[in-house]
Order: sequence, then C-alpha cells, then structure tokens
Amino acid sequence: MKKQIIKPRTLKGFRDFLPAAMMPREQLMETARRVYRSYGYAPIDTPALEHLEILTGKGSEETDRQMFHFVDHGKRSVGMRFDLTVPLARFVAQHIEQLGTPFKRYHIATVWRGENPQAGRYREFAQCDFDTIGTTSIASDVEAVLVINDLLRAIGFEQFTIRINNRKVLNGLLAKFELLEKSTEVLRAVDKIEKAGREKVIAELATCGIQSGQVEQILGLVEIRGDTRQTLDQLQPLTQGNELAERGWNELQELTSLVQQAGVPPENYRIDPSIARGLDYYTGVVFETSLDEDPGIGSVCSGGRYDNLAELYTSRQLPGIGASLGLDRLLAAMERLEMIPTTSTPADVMVVNFERQYLGQYLNLAAQLRVAGFGVEVYCDNKKPGQQFKYADRKGFQVCLIAGGDEFERQVVQLKWLADGTQIEVPVSDGIEQLVAALREGLAVTR
Amino acid sequence: MKKQIIKPRTLKGFRDFLPAAMMPREQLMETARRVYRSYGYAPIDTPALEHLEILTGKGSEETDRQMFHFVDHGKRSVGMRFDLTVPLARFVAQHIEQLGTPFKRYHIATVWRGENPQAGRYREFAQCDFDTIGTTSIASDVEAVLVINDLLRAIGFEQFTIRINNRKVLNGLLAKFELLEKSTEVLRAVDKIEKAGREKVIAELATCGIQSGQVEQILGLVEIRGDTRQTLDQLQPLTQGNELAERGWNELQELTSLVQQAGVPPENYRIDPSIARGLDYYTGVVFETSLDEDPGIGSVCSGGRYDNLAELYTSRQLPGIGASLGLDRLLAAMERLEMIPTTSTPADVMVVNFERQYLGQYLNLAAQLRVAGFGVEVYCDNKKPGQQFKYADRKGFQVCLIAGGDEFERQVVQLKWLADGTQIEVPVSDGIEQLVAALREGLAVTR
Repeated sequence: MKKQIIKPRTLKGFRDFLPAAMMPREQLMETARRVYRSYGYAPIDTPALEHLEILTGKGSEETDRQMFHFVDHGKRSVGMRFDLTVPLARFVAQHIEQLGTPFKRYHIATVWRGENPQAGRYREFAQCDFDTIGTTSIASDVEAVLVINDLLRAIGFEQFTIRINNRKVLNGLLAKFELLEKSTEVLRAVDKIEKAGREKVIAELATCGIQSGQVEQILGLVEIRGDTRQTLDQLQPLTQGNELAERGWNELQELTSLVQQAGVPPENYRIDPSIARGLDYYTGVVFETSLDEDPGIGSVCSGGRYDNLAELYTSRQLPGIGASLGLDRLLAAMERLEMIPTTSTPADVMVVNFERQYLGQYLNLAAQLRVAGFGVEVYCDNKKPGQQFKYADRKGFQVCLIAGGDEFERQVVQLKWLADGTQIEVPVSDGIEQLVAALREGLAVTR
Repeated sequence: MKKQIIKPRTLKGFRDFLPAAMMPREQLMETARRVYRSYGYAPIDTPALEHLEILTGKGSEETDRQMFHFVDHGKRSVGMRFDLTVPLARFVAQHIEQLGTPFKRYHIATVWRGENPQAGRYREFAQCDFDTIGTTSIASDVEAVLVINDLLRAIGFEQFTIRINNRKVLNGLLAKFELLEKSTEVLRAVDKIEKAGREKVIAELATCGIQSGQVEQILGLVEIRGDTRQTLDQLQPLTQGNELAERGWNELQELTSLVQQAGVPPENYRIDPSIARGLDYYTGVVFETSLDEDPGIGSVCSGGRYDNLAELYTSRQLPGIGASLGLDRLLAAMERLEMIPTTSTPADVMVVNFERQYLGQYLNLAAQLRVAGFGVEVYCDNKKPGQQFKYADRKGFQVCLIAGGDEFERQVVQLKWLADGTQIEVPVSDGIEQLVAALREGLAVTR
C-alpha cells in the first residue's frame, strides 16, 4: 500500500529561509552584535512564551488582538511575545537589583504577530534592539546615534540620514497653546506629513479642534528644514516662553554638538522636527533613519527616550533610551541595491573528489586549509568532474582545488577559479604555504 | 489611586538569560557557526510554528504529547516545533529541487517541549544541528566526525572522546540470530548498559525472549573495548557470515582509517560497539561524544546516518547524516570546569566620565578606540569616580581610561588595570598609537 504523503508547506505568513537568504541575514545579525558589543551592550534572552497577563498589560489593542495565545498543558494562559520591549520591561523589573544601573542590553530574537500578511509583512520576524536602562544622561542619547551610525556603516551603507527630534519641543508648544491633552492626536497627525502630505495633516488637526493659527504654528515647526545650525536657529523662537520646549531645544543642541564632536559626518544626521514616532511611550529624543538611496523603504532604525519602562511590573521608575534595527527592511534595501552576493555556500574552496583512494589526502588538505582560515568543502561523492564543477558553480564557490594521480605524483595541486575559468598549478611539496598564498591572493581579487 | 503591579515572572520551565549567562551561550553558537561554515554547511531557518499535521507525523508519542499546540486566529491547528529534524524533513521535501544535492545545512534555533521540568531540563531550549542530505558517501560520515572534533577544540576542549559505532553491525548479528524484528527493543536495552549495568541489560534481553547464548554474544559484542585496531579485530569474527554486519564492519574500518588520515588525534575517537542511539531512525554510523573530564554529563554531540529523512512528505528517498551539539550540556560542563569568565560586559575598556565638559572628547576617544578594534563603554553619568569604578569592577571591565582637566592639558590619559589596580600614564599628543599598544599589551596579559 502506498503511504499517504503529507504535503510539505509552511503556514500562511511564515517563511523558510534558504541558505542564499539566510546567509546575509545571519551576517547582518552578526554585524549588529559586533557593533552593540563594541559599546558595551550585553546580550540577553527571554522566553518566547510568557504569562498572558504580562504581555497584554502593555501592548496596544492592536498587538493584543494580533497576539498568538493559548492555554498550555498546565492550564495557564500564555502568549507568544509580539515585541522585545514588553519582555524587556518584565525582565528589568524582575532582575534590576542583580543587574544594577545603567543596564545596557541588546536582544536579537523572533517575535510573532497574527496580523494579516501583506507585502513585506510576516507573522514571524526578528527584532534587533538595544537599550540603556536606568539613566537620563545625554551621553546615552548621543550613544544611540553613534551606534546607529556605526551599524549602518558596518553593514555597508554610507548614504543615510539619522533624523533626530525631541518630543519636548512639540509638546512644549502644545502646552503653550494649552493643547497638551491632545498631544497624542497631534503627534499621530504630524507623523503622517511625509506620506499623506500637508493638506491631510491640516484637515486632521482641524478635526481635533485646533485653531487655524495654532495649526499654522505647529506646521511651521514641523516643516523646518536645513542643516543642524539653521534648524536650531529656526526652532528657537518657537520654543521660547515654554520651559519644556526650551529644555527640548537645549537637549537637541547639546546632542547634535556631541554627535559632531564624536565624529559622525554632518551629512549622516539632521534635526527633523517632523519626526514624532507614534507611540505615547517616548518622552525625549526620538529618531528615525532613512537610506538616501532607498528612502521609500521607510525608517531602518528607530527609537527614542522614555521615562518609565516598566511601570506595569515595578514601582521603581526606570528611564531609558533604545532603538531597533529593522532587519527585514534593511535586507530588502540591500537586495535592491545589489549589496548581497548570490552564493549559497559559506565556503570559498571546493576540493574536487576525483578518486576514492585519495579521499584521506583530500580530507587532510582541507583540514590544513581550514586551520589557515579558509572555508573548504570536500565534495562528498565520486561523481564525474563535470557534475562536481556544476555543483561548485551553482553553490557559488570561488575556486576548485583539483588533484588526481598525476598531481599527487608531482606534488602539486591545480586551482581553478570559477569566475573566469583560469587554472594555475601550485606546488605542495614543501607544505601548503604557497597554496595558502595563492588562495589568499585569488580570493582578494574575486571578492 | 495606586496602580496594580503585575508580578514580573517567567513561566515554569522557561528561563531568562542574563548577560553573564548569555555571553558564553552566544559565544558557543558563534563558534558552532564558524566551524560549520568552514566545512561548507550553510545556515537555514524555518518557522517556530508549523501546521500540526506536519509535526505530529514524525515524532514519537512522547513528543506528540509534549508539543505546544493550539488553534490559531485562522482556525488552523498549529504546533510549536519540538526539534529541528522534523522541520528539516519538511523543508527538504519542499525545496529539494531548488536546493539540489548534496545539501549541507546547519540550523541553530529554539525548540519547545512541555515536559515536566527537572534538573537541567527546560521547556524551551536551543538546538544546534548540522546535516548533509542526499548522499550515502562515507566522505560525509567522516566529515561529521571531523566537524565534532573541530567544534570541541574550537570551544576549548582537548580531552574528549567521539565514540563511533555502526548500526549495521548489531543489526547484522540480530539478522543472523533471526531476531531482526526485535532490533528496536535490543537497541534500547543495549543503550542502557553504561547507566544501568550488565545485569539489568541481561534481564531486559531475556524478557524480550532472547536465548541466553545469543544474549552472551550480543553482550560480547557490546562490551568490546580497546583501541581502534583491537576493537576492529575483536569485532570481525562476530560479523562473519552476515552480509549486513560485514558491511557495517567494513564501513567502520574505512571510516576510522579516513578519520586518522584527516588528522584527528587517536585519543579523541574510538569505536564503541555499545553506542546504539535509541531512535529507529538511524541506519548506519552512529556517534556520541563524551567529555573525559566530565563524563557524567552524557553525550555533548550525537548523531548518525539515516536512510530516509523525509518519507512522510515526499516519495523521494533522501538519505543523510547529521549530528546535534548539546548547548545546555556543554555550557554546564564548561561552567563546572571553570572555562567561563564571570564578566557581564562584552567590552574591555571603560572610559570614566569625569567632567561633563569633556564628554565630547571621551566619546571621540572611544570612537577611535573602537575603530582600532576595542570594545569601549563611556560611562553615561557624571557620578563620583568611586561609583564609576565600582560599576566597572562589578561588570568585569579589564581597564578604565581616566582623563580629567590635568590630563587633557598635558595630553595624556591614565590607564587603570582593574585586576591589580596598577595605573600607567600614556601620551596621546601624537594620536592614539601608544594608547592602542598599551591596551593591546595589557589585554593580552589579563586574558
């Protein structure tokens, strides 16, 4: 009787990552880890599943609705994390005595949201966050900008703009107008100015019951453009007369001055008074990062300062600042900008497996080359050379190492470079030194 | 009104990883990735959630019972993966045409099992697997042993034993006895010999209805000990007269010969005829790896060859070989053997934040040192130096960089080494070259 085959497939909104997609993804995460670590951010991890009441406490209605949740074997209501911020809040509330402050952590992990999958939206995706908890110092605000700058450079971008704003400026203006209780609606409206345009925002602000004179002033603030000095100069008169707005302006001035002193090129950051970041959560500096070559993709790294991270789980006030790198957006942009190689092997060298009697020697040679730092695959079967070369080509190896009876007798090996088909002979009678040199040179050229 | 605080806590059987625990864990995964890649294994990832019918198809009754599963928003029955082998089977069945064979992949990811948490058992843990699919070649069997050897060495172990066996030997003997239909029970009994002892195994084999003469021969085979040559010599007469057993013996001989030729030291592997690996799944070579300094912890890397990975999802036969690195066990052993540093920062250098007016210079100096390859944290607050040093000490920084008004005037910085409190002055008037040299030297000593 023929067995019933279960159709192999993934759930709607979920993805398999094949090697060609997973390699750059893993690379990106490693780059992020390296940069985070270089600033003293330490890794943590938290469970994928949490008590449901922990997760529903903090999210919006939307995240509550989208959360995957169920009752487990022990009749507990549990949910799958939908971001890394709520778990961070629970984590610091639980462990802060042991961790001490300032606490700097990064967290790269998978989150789940049962939203309706659209283009570029998935039900499972990775987040890549860094935060500094337990300090209100401007040094950590500056550092967040420096981390973003280093991150994007380490990934390979040079043309990007970190757009910096401070919530206090707009909130101060609203306080001056006695409109502070409408700040959430105003921020949401203002956030849309780039996508929806000026008229839509004016209409939306009017709907909130804001007088046209005030709408003009709000838009005047939001639409300020120019270099850092010019923007600060134009902002200043709008902030005068309100302590909160003045404080926000001072923070922006000090922040940008320190960012400049720390060495970030002026073309990679600017003050953008239209950056609001929808969430209520932020209370001070906020930022977004756009790729100059692919602005339509939206912000690839966003974040800001908050006053009270973990209020649901502890009475201790924990201010902090953090940001999140958008892995999926970055990978999409890198693919569009042809920054991703099309290989599907992490090794550069393939040893052609010519004759079974030499297999021990192939394996030994490969082992020596690995010690010298190369990635080397010995082709596992004794297939025809043509098939082996085809495999090497398809996977994206850079070079094939060829040795048969004749070569072993003469104590040489052949290197065949796959990009142009050139072949050279290298002696190995005195060890692999010349082989290592030839590979290093060739790989430096092909890369 | 005082707000209700939700008690911050994790679910039973789940863990938070604080920095001191997460850093070595992340390091271990990075080492595994580096070694896997050096052999041409490529990374993949699959969803945490799969259609329930995909997951229940292949696992044992036990895994079915332990699986976290629920009905999602779209009324689909879904389960959380309980290992990486079932998802691999589904993945290759679905994508093999695109992937081609041989297909070499590694997969490091979280899995979930709702088992009753005991010492060292969790409901969420990471697996770290590598497999070669679509080949029956002995080269890939050998390679699995080489990978394990490289892995353990790269992690820092030298005293370990890869214990190698071949299912065909014992199965051949059972065939000779016309007991092949009892092979699963026999393998399960034999698997216990180290833990339960000889008498228990004899009793269990007797219960299976095996004659005492055959029990003696089975135990005679299982209890063979010695170096590779001796073991092969003692095994040979037991295999004679059965084709399957003879094939198993030949494979063991060829495998060990190639492992030796590839350069694995003889003290790091041996043939152990008692290794059976409980699962039905394996059909050829099987192996386990024990740490000579901590044998009680059990196998830290196990695996073997199988004939048909994905039979539930495709009619195409896909043989392969693979193994799994036991991260939790390795970390436990490393902790016991004091191989894990007790720091909780990934950076070596902390810049003391003495005076606010110099913050820009501190940030700039730190940026330069990062370019030179150091991990550098600028302490974020202007706290008293004593508090800053205490923080540096607690986190495990190696060295503090100190510079105040006097130092900036004289164009020097102070380096204070935390291990012994020694302090040296380094000029920075001509750039950071001397500073970099002093840090490199000091860090080489402290490490």
